[in-house]
Formats: sequence, C-alpha cells, structure tokens
Amino acid sequence: MMEDITIRFEESIAPEDRTAPIMIEGLPGIGHVGKLVAEHMIQELGAVRIAEINSIYFPPQVIIQEGGTVRLCNNEIYRYSGEKGTYLFLVGDFQSTSGEGHYLLSQVYVDICHQLGVRRIYTIGGYGIGHFNEVTRVIAAVNREDLRQQVEDAGGIFSEGEPGGGIIGAAGLMLGLSIPLGIEGICLMGETSGYLVDPRSATTVLSVLTKLLGIEIDDAKLTERAGEMEVALQRLLEQERKSEEELSYIG
Amino acid sequence: MMEDITIRFEESIAPEDRTAPIMIEGLPGIGHVGKLVAEHMIQELGAVRIAEINSIYFPPQVIIQEGGTVRLCNNEIYRYSGEKGTYLFLVGDFQSTSGEGHYLLSQVYVDICHQLGVRRIYTIGGYGIGHFNEVTRVIAAVNREDLRQQVEDAGGIFSEGEPGGGIIGAAGLMLGLSIPLGIEGICLMGETSGYLVDPRSATTVLSVLTKLLGIEIDDAKLTERAGEMEVALQRLLEQERKSEEELSYIG
Amino acid sequence: MMEDITIRFEESIAPEDRTAPIMIEGLPGIGHVGKLVAEHMIQELGAVRIAEINSIYFPPQVIIQEGGTVRLCNNEIYRYSGEKGTYLFLVGDFQSTSGEGHYLLSQVYVDICHQLGVRRIYTIGGYGIGHFNEVTRVIAAVNREDLRQQVEDAGGIFSEGEPGGGIIGAAGLMLGLSIPLGIEGICLMGETSGYLVDPRSATTVLSVLTKLLGIEIDDAKLTERAGEMEVALQRLLEQERKSEEELSYIG
Amino acid sequence: MMEDITIRFEESIAPEDRTAPIMIEGLPGIGHVGKLVAEHMIQELGAVRIAEINSIYFPPQVIIQEGGTVRLCNNEIYRYSGEKGTYLFLVGDFQSTSGEGHYLLSQVYVDICHQLGVRRIYTIGGYGIGHFNEVTRVIAAVNREDLRQQVEDAGGIFSEGEPGGGIIGAAGLMLGLSIPLGIEGICLMGETSGYLVDPRSATTVLSVLTKLLGIEIDDAKLTERAGEMEVALQRLLEQERKSEEELSYIG
Repeated sequence: MMEDITIRFEESIAPEDRTAPIMIEGLPGIGHVGKLVAEHMIQELGAVRIAEINSIYFPPQVIIQEGGTVRLCNNEIYRYSGEKGTYLFLVGDFQSTSGEGHYLLSQVYVDICHQLGVRRIYTIGGYGIGHFNEVTRVIAAVNREDLRQQVEDAGGIFSEGEPGGGIIGAAGLMLGLSIPLGIEGICLMGETSGYLVDPRSATTVLSVLTKLLGIEIDDAKLTERAGEMEVALQRLLEQERKSEEELSYIG
Repeated sequence: MMEDITIRFEESIAPEDRTAPIMIEGLPGIGHVGKLVAEHMIQELGAVRIAEINSIYFPPQVIIQEGGTVRLCNNEIYRYSGEKGTYLFLVGDFQSTSGEGHYLLSQVYVDICHQLGVRRIYTIGGYGIGHFNEVTRVIAAVNREDLRQQVEDAGGIFSEGEPGGGIIGAAGLMLGLSIPLGIEGICLMGETSGYLVDPRSATTVLSVLTKLLGIEIDDAKLTERAGEMEVALQRLLEQERKSEEELSYIG
Repeated sequence: MMEDITIRFEESIAPEDRTAPIMIEGLPGIGHVGKLVAEHMIQELGAVRIAEINSIYFPPQVIIQEGGTVRLCNNEIYRYSGEKGTYLFLVGDFQSTSGEGHYLLSQVYVDICHQLGVRRIYTIGGYGIGHFNEVTRVIAAVNREDLRQQVEDAGGIFSEGEPGGGIIGAAGLMLGLSIPLGIEGICLMGETSGYLVDPRSATTVLSVLTKLLGIEIDDAKLTERAGEMEVALQRLLEQERKSEEELSYIG
Repeated sequence: MMEDITIRFEESIAPEDRTAPIMIEGLPGIGHVGKLVAEHMIQELGAVRIAEINSIYFPPQVIIQEGGTVRLCNNEIYRYSGEKGTYLFLVGDFQSTSGEGHYLLSQVYVDICHQLGVRRIYTIGGYGIGHFNEVTRVIAAVNREDLRQQVEDAGGIFSEGEPGGGIIGAAGLMLGLSIPLGIEGICLMGETSGYLVDPRSATTVLSVLTKLLGIEIDDAKLTERAGEMEVALQRLLEQERKSEEELSYIG
C-alpha cells in the first residue's frame, strides 16, 4: 500500500550533507510569490535537490516534463551550503487538496526540519489585495514575539488586521506547528494584486529576506523567471480546471 | 505524524485542579451566542485556561494575534473554581470542517468531561429565525427527561418542532454522546436573527443559565464584548472566505 | 475515541432472540418507500428493537424527540418472531453522508445479517420516475439468477434498463456485498414520482413483498402513516438544509 | 470490516497462469478511448478474467446486469496468452471518486503488475480537444526517456504542452508509480472531441499500440462495439447524475 506521505532522500547525499540551520519554504500560493522567491534563490545559489515528497493529498495526476517523460506531483527539498551560508528550500508543484492534508503535510515538513537541525523557518507567500499598488509592502508574522524587531529592521511590516486574522496552508501551519519543536518561524508575505506571478512583489520580499539572512542575491533574472513560471503555471491551472471536469466525468 | 486530535493540559496545573462537576460549551455557531456567553463568563469569573485542543479537522490556517505572532487554530478549556462554584468552559476559534470531524471532536470533548468528573454539560447556541424579534426566547433540549422541569423553571422553553428536528455540531452531539457516559446534558439556544453576534440573545441565555447554576453574573459588559467579537469575527469570516478561494487556487 | 461505526444490541434480549432467516431493509430513500414499508410492518407486527447503530458517517446532529429529549442519529434493527414468521428490519434516520461510508455501513449490515443467521435480505426502495403514474410498478433486482422467477410470480418486474444501470446506497450495496456471504438478496423498488412520501407506491411494494413472504399485512394504516412521516421528514429535510448553511458558517 | 480495496483472483486459475510481461490499462475516461481499445482487444483475443477489484473508492452503487442480477462496481484484470503474446488488461466500470482513492487504487494496480511479472505498462486514454478533427493524433508520454523513440516509430506524437502539463487518474499515476518499481510505462492518448465514445480515436490508438506490441488486431468491430458501449454508458452516466441527486437526498 502507498504511504499517505512519502519522503525519499537522495541516497547519493550523505546524512551530514542534509542539515542546515535555516529552511525557506516557497510552495505555490497567491501570486506565486513564495515559489518565485525560493526557486530564484535555488537557481542563483545553485542549490542541490536532496529529497522528494509524494503524497495522496496532492492532485491525482502526473506532470509531463520536457521530452515527454512523466513524474509524480511532488514537493522537493533543496540545499545550498557555501560562502553565503547553509539553507534548505521547500518548493513544489502543489499544496494539499484537503484541509486534513495541509495539516499532515505541514507536520511532516516541520518534522523534517527538526531532524535536519533547522532552527529557523522562513515561509514566503503573497498577500492578495485585489488591485495594483504603486508600493509593495511585505507583511510579516512570527511565531515568537522576540523575532519581530529584526523583521521590522529588515523592512517587514506588522500591520494589525492584515492578513485578516489568519495565514492559510503550509506558510501558516509550518509556523504554528514548529512552536512546540522550538523552531523559530517568520512568514513574509508580499503584497500582490492576485493571480498572476508577480516578480515585483517577489523582488521586494527577496530584499527583506536577504537582509534577514545577511546575504546578497542578484535579482536581475527574477522578472525573466516570473515570465517562464507564468507560462508553466497557466498550463497547469488550465490542466487542473480540465482535470476537475474529467474527474467528475470518469470518477 | 500529527495526531488527528491533540489535547495538551497546562503542566503548571495539578490534575486535581482540572476537575469540575459542570462543563459549559460555547463554541462558534449561529449568532455566536454560545461563544459570547461562555467567553463573557470566563472573563467575569476570571477562569483559567487549563487545556488546548488542536486538530486536523479545524481549518488549515493559523490565527494572527495582536503583536503579529501566530498560533494554531484551537479549542480551549478554561476552569473557574471559587465562591460561585466550579466550572469548565469549552470555547474556541472554529468547529470541525467535516461531519466526521464533528463526531470525533465531540467524542473527545465528552471523554474529557468524563475524565474530569463532569456530571452535567450545558451546551449553548443560537437558534436562527431569520428575522428580528421583540422578545428573545431560549429554546431548550435535554438528554434526559427528568431535566426538563428545572430548565422550564429557569425560563427555558421546550417547543415541539423547534429547532426543526435536530441540533447540529458540538452543541447537539455532546448531548447525545454523553448519554452512555451517564452525564446530564442541557442545550440552551437563544433566538437570534442570524449572522451577527447577538448580545441581546446572549443576555437572555445567560439569565436562564445562571438561574440553573444558582449564581449571578453581571451582564453589563456583554454588549461591549459582542461589539469587539463582531469585529474580530468579521475579520475571520472574511479571511475564511478568502481562504477557500486561495485553497482552490493553491491546492 | 469514537468507533467509526458502533453496534449496540439491547442487553435485555438474549442472543438466541436476535436471529432470523430474513432481513427487510427500509432506510430513507426516494419517496421514502422503503422506510414507509418497513416501519409499517414493524408497527403492524409489533416488532421489537434489538440493536442500534451509530456512525460518524451519519450527519453530525442529534434528533430532538417529543418531550424535548435528544438522541444521536441512528439506524436500528427490529425483530418480529410470531405466527407470521421471524423477521429482522433495518430502519433509521439517514444513510451515510459519503460514498466510503455507504460501503462501510452496508458491509456492517450484511455482516450483522450473517451473524444473525439471515439467509435472505429484502431491500426496499423507491424508483423515481419524475411524474405521476396511474399504475405503480414494482421494479426488482436480485443477486442470484434463480431468485428471479419467484419475484416475478409475486408481481415484481424485471425491466431491462430500469433503473438505468445501478442501485445506489444500502439497497444496492447490501445485495452486492451479501453475495460472497451466500445470502440471497432481492431489491424491490416502487415507482414513485419523486420526493414526497408515497403511500400508494408503498402499498404496491408491500403487496409484492408479503406475497414473497407468504403472509398478509393489513395496509389500511399505510396512508395515515405516510402523512405523519411526511410531516416529520419535511421537518428533518428543512433542518438538514439549514444545517448545511450553518455548518459552512461555523466550520 | 470491508477492506478499502479488495483483490480477488479467480481460484480456478493457477498462479503461473496469472503472469504476463505487459499490462494494458483501459479504464473509463475521456471519450472512453482506453476502455474501448482494451475491451475490444479482450474480445478479439478471447482474454480470460483472472481477478476482480472492489473498493470503497468506487461509487456506492451496484450495477444491474442483463437478467436483473446485480454485482458490485469493480475493476477487472483479464489475461491473454497465445500466439499473439501474453498480456494483462485492466478494465472496469469506474475510476475512484476521490483524489486519495486515485492514488491508492493506482498503487494497488502497479503492485499487482509487479507481482505478476509485468515489465511494461501501457495506459490508454483520450485527449479531449473540444472539437471534431479530420486527423486523429495519438499523443504520448513515457516514464523513461529511452522509450520515446519506439513510441514515435509506431506513430505516437510527443507534443510539448499537450496535454497541458499533466495526465490525471490511473493513466497518469500508474506511469508515475511504476517508476520506483522499474516498470516501463507508456501512455497513449487518442485525440477526441470529448464526451462521446469515439471509435475513430480508438482505432488510431489501437494501430499505434499494436505496432508497439508487434501484433495485428482486427478493428472491424470497433465501431459496432463503440455503439453498444455508448448506449450502456449513457445509461450509467444518467444513473450517476441521478445518484448524486439521490445521495444528497438520502444522505
């Protein structure tokens, strides 16, 4: 029988080359701000894939890759260790399709962090405001009060009542579930109009995040990457809409 | 792996300081009458938090608190022991998002009651009538026929066909599930127009409840608290509506 | 923790007073034909309640009974043993709210039949045709070819393509799941316009069923009972519609 | 209790008469292209049923067969072994009704393949384009790059961005889930307008598939079979639509 959630570490990577003090989560979400920031960093830093996560809580489909080969939907963990520090990145195709799955997957993510020595998690997301703005703020939340000052110093904004009272999905749950494990959690949400991949919002979030990390990451290619991601995502979303029709037809 | 439902008692509170003969449930519901009554009593009596309940059956989000720190959605148990008696209170952010979750959570609640020596459960709710009324009745139901007289003496009304034939969620299920445990159950539902936090309905329910408990609770701050709760809840509801959009987008 | 499905036999009834060679299922469904037939027989024969079934797959609500006491939603087994034979009856408030629950509950029902010595199951339902008919046919299906002749002799009709290709819920699944247990299964579906409790359809089904059983049951009170059931069901259905609104509000 | 997924092999068939190097999956889907191709091959080759799969993830209904007998919804495995080779076929009434069920069933299917010595799986489906085409292409995907050439040689087309980025249901998941088992996977999707059983699309897919298998299968009866299947499926679909109404009514 399939496990509800499966984690497979790359066997070629030694256990001691999996650890890191910091995890940066950038799963799909509003404006795909988190996904864009995390995947940009992975590419700029040359981070290496160390683990793959599959789950029955992801949509029941495979992804067709260039060249016509398929792979299961997944979430992936990348790792960078070099002169700019040591980081893990959590990225992927989808989040859970059910509320229960969100909890169970997020718990697995923070458990992995715990095992790999992570002491701080950054979750990156978008904050949909439904219209275009001249200035992009980075709204923040933390899982310990003593983290607030450094986030503000880096340009993150704590604005009462924004977002409305909650943060949904992995970006929120990983912060909450890491509290009993003693892992610090910081959520950075870039304001964005809504449903398009938003490189400007991602650029602003990246600048706050890198200030917090104390490193510099070139953002020149962010806009280009946003364009490529937009094309890929439109395809996926279209497919997803179609899938729901089909599922209701074949199920 | 995350447990489907987790109960964490405050370690600083000795087991013998957790027990009580009476539990008052006031989870969110129609007009948030139960939530308002229970939280008002907690504050007026200065009840102390003794346990927190988390569950994958709650919405997959964290709550942002004042100051920008997050916490998991939860239900909480408070306890008061003093000159006005000894009571447990069950309050929280949400009820279950699924029918199965309603049953499983309600069973956990009555099992906790059983362990903590509870001999009577009051569940408080609203009874939506869809329009504004001059007079607010308190519709009642019980899980043992011999409880009816004292509820009527205190001002509760048993009206055949009201509510229609059922009481949904924890307010109903806790009454049903406590029967095999020998725990008495009384449900008090304040008539309310519908979706606004209704302090007048809560005041009327509070007067019936306190008559049954044989104590007095000042209701002067109920209206003020209803106003604050309304603001907080509108925020949560807005967030929840948004969450569903987002979940369908990112899932 | 609550079991997903719980069966409680009345302790006052000895195990040897639970068995019967025949089970008649009449759970809620189209036109409530099955419910009406089974509950009419229970009352006419004076059958005795021997078991109650609760489940997290039923709607998360309690039923308010006359007098204002509540009880959990349930399905119940009644038994009659006397000069007209020995029969079990399966009746109840609801069927499952999910597809998986339908399977799991139906499996429990046929397992109970197996334990209690049942050698034949009759499942009774309605067959919605969407309009009123002068003549009410009883459409039949069986789980063994050799049962067909006796059903036809009693007035049941096998009509290719009716119903369309499937029988949903317990009425169908109990027939399918009882095959590997060697229990005979006969489904009798009375034609009915649709959503009203239909005493004429029930009367016709009753006549076919009693011919198969080789007994007579007075049908004089069927119409009266249908009237009462209609009132009660309208109340429940109204409540259910309201419940869904409320659940989406409080969940 | 019922198992979530049950596999029953025909006892009359010896274990050594269950194995095959190739599995051809043709479960219901767009245009029922896969179902039509697989069932046509089963009939033309005279393949023998060796196993039946039941599951709580299938719709909660029984199928009424000719003659008025019922059977549970199922998926079935057929086997042919003769001068044209040795093949397994996976066909059935439905796919899963839930995303989680799709994963769990597909995992069972590839595990069965693994046990029965299968080294290559062909999954057959339709690719809905929403309009009628003069020419029917067969869009392909594979689970290993080295399979691409032989598929192209047989007439399969690898078209970037078609289908949109994913293949849903068993046709996709079986390819993905068979990778860690070392089983080759090839998906062939015949272009089709959409919701009608499409014998022309099936004919084209059959020609590509048989070229890959190195055998010939007469396609003369495909159109006739498509007509019969269309009648049966319309009946099932109508029933399914009705079932959803009924389930929401009785549940």
